[in-house]
Amino acid sequence: MNKKPLILVTNDDGITAPGLRNLIDVMNELGDVVVVAPDGPQSGMGHAVTINNTIYCNKIVVDEGPQEEYKSSGTPADCVKLAVSEVLDRKPDLCVSGINHGSNSSINVIYSGTMSAAVEAGVEGIPAIGFSLLDYSWNANFKPLKPYIKKIAENVLENGLPDGVVLNVNFPKENAFKGIKVCRQARANWVEEFDRRINPQGKVYYWLTGKFVNMDEGNDTDEWALENNYISVVPVQFDLTAHHFIKNLHNWDL
Amino acid sequence: MNKKPLILVTNDDGITAPGLRNLIDVMNELGDVVVVAPDGPQSGMGHAVTINNTIYCNKIVVDEGPQEEYKSSGTPADCVKLAVSEVLDRKPDLCVSGINHGSNSSINVIYSGTMSAAVEAGVEGIPAIGFSLLDYSWNANFKPLKPYIKKIAENVLENGLPDGVVLNVNFPKENAFKGIKVCRQARANWVEEFDRRINPQGKVYYWLTGKFVNMDEGNDTDEWALENNYISVVPVQFDLTAHHFIKNLHNWDL
Repeated sequence: MNKKPLILVTNDDGITAPGLRNLIDVMNELGDVVVVAPDGPQSGMGHAVTINNTIYCNKIVVDEGPQEEYKSSGTPADCVKLAVSEVLDRKPDLCVSGINHGSNSSINVIYSGTMSAAVEAGVEGIPAIGFSLLDYSWNANFKPLKPYIKKIAENVLENGLPDGVVLNVNFPKENAFKGIKVCRQARANWVEEFDRRINPQGKVYYWLTGKFVNMDEGNDTDEWALENNYISVVPVQFDLTAHHFIKNLHNWDL
Repeated sequence: MNKKPLILVTNDDGITAPGLRNLIDVMNELGDVVVVAPDGPQSGMGHAVTINNTIYCNKIVVDEGPQEEYKSSGTPADCVKLAVSEVLDRKPDLCVSGINHGSNSSINVIYSGTMSAAVEAGVEGIPAIGFSLLDYSWNANFKPLKPYIKKIAENVLENGLPDGVVLNVNFPKENAFKGIKVCRQARANWVEEFDRRINPQGKVYYWLTGKFVNMDEGNDTDEWALENNYISVVPVQFDLTAHHFIKNLHNWDL
């Protein structure tokens, strides 16, 4: 490449999250970095966009790195839209989102703000990757992830990604990674267990909690890879059509 | 069927939205209806779930129909989780979401609160359908949709849906429907045009706006069907794996 690639960085844990700061470090080695990230936590926001409220977006300096940074009151998907439409003067060569503090494997992909930012970039025609670490702690050790993140990002910059495909990369909690596995999304879900409480005014309220259940016995899934200490890479698409069921539907009495 | 089917009804426009009230009318003809819906508008919420805040859920009476109703402070996906885990004493036979005031065709499926409720039901193993009308007005005429909604819901109650598949049904704005078309999701996106303004304190803020662009010339898409006055039915899956790209990824230097 003649000129340095332009790399957009975002996340859903907010602009000061250590996962994001570590991702910026790696991207600064690969290109010109612009960060547009939420000003606070946006976990579990799925692909929410802000249509009934105003959005703020302001330039800030967080550390002494060479990157340019903007914090926004919007969702992760809003941040990508703002970056493309208002902040950047050309389409970025790559968008990376994360490193999320917590898993975005299997069904978590649909709830994930991190992955929605990557998907939004994909929708806009930008090669995109979401990175997540299976460790919710704010002080998780992101250092061992860096060479892998660099390699995967270099591959995407070099090879591109087909239209309509982004990557979902998850790292196991234990740092002795066995390597990288290309996987499919495991069939799994959350079994809810709402925590029912009474507020000081005597009114019932709930906290959403739940137990993750993997119903998939395949050894080609992201859950299998992560349980066996591999880094999982799942290609993710946003054409949600269940093409295999179209033929059956034609036989319905509609 | 010996006993009447149990039908869960929800939406993203809020429990008083005419689209929801019309959907309840139709479902009351088909089974025992329980409504768990947001207490206010939740459009554009995508698959957001409430993990950093409390959720309220209270029984209310909105009209004199036979249905049982609950309003919740949660997102559409939260409403389905609450219904299954806290409100209902058995798994519903069907979950319907809508009728949305506005389109959820093509790429809108990923931003849609209406469809996220249907997808959430699908994740929980409940046959589910999202219904939307391409008319944003609060006073849209939902009456001509009712026989079609009934027929589609009867088909799902009769035939079921395969694991991992829900239906996305959109109605064109003009009411002289030519019939129902089974379709795939069109390749389309929104080109953002943020409306940049200055608030009374002199601070820049934005409103998200945009222009919908259909890049798909196929005549087997939902956009084609809707433009030609057909009702579109797209089977939607939540296994987001881009299976076609897994083989290529194996050849990458990872």
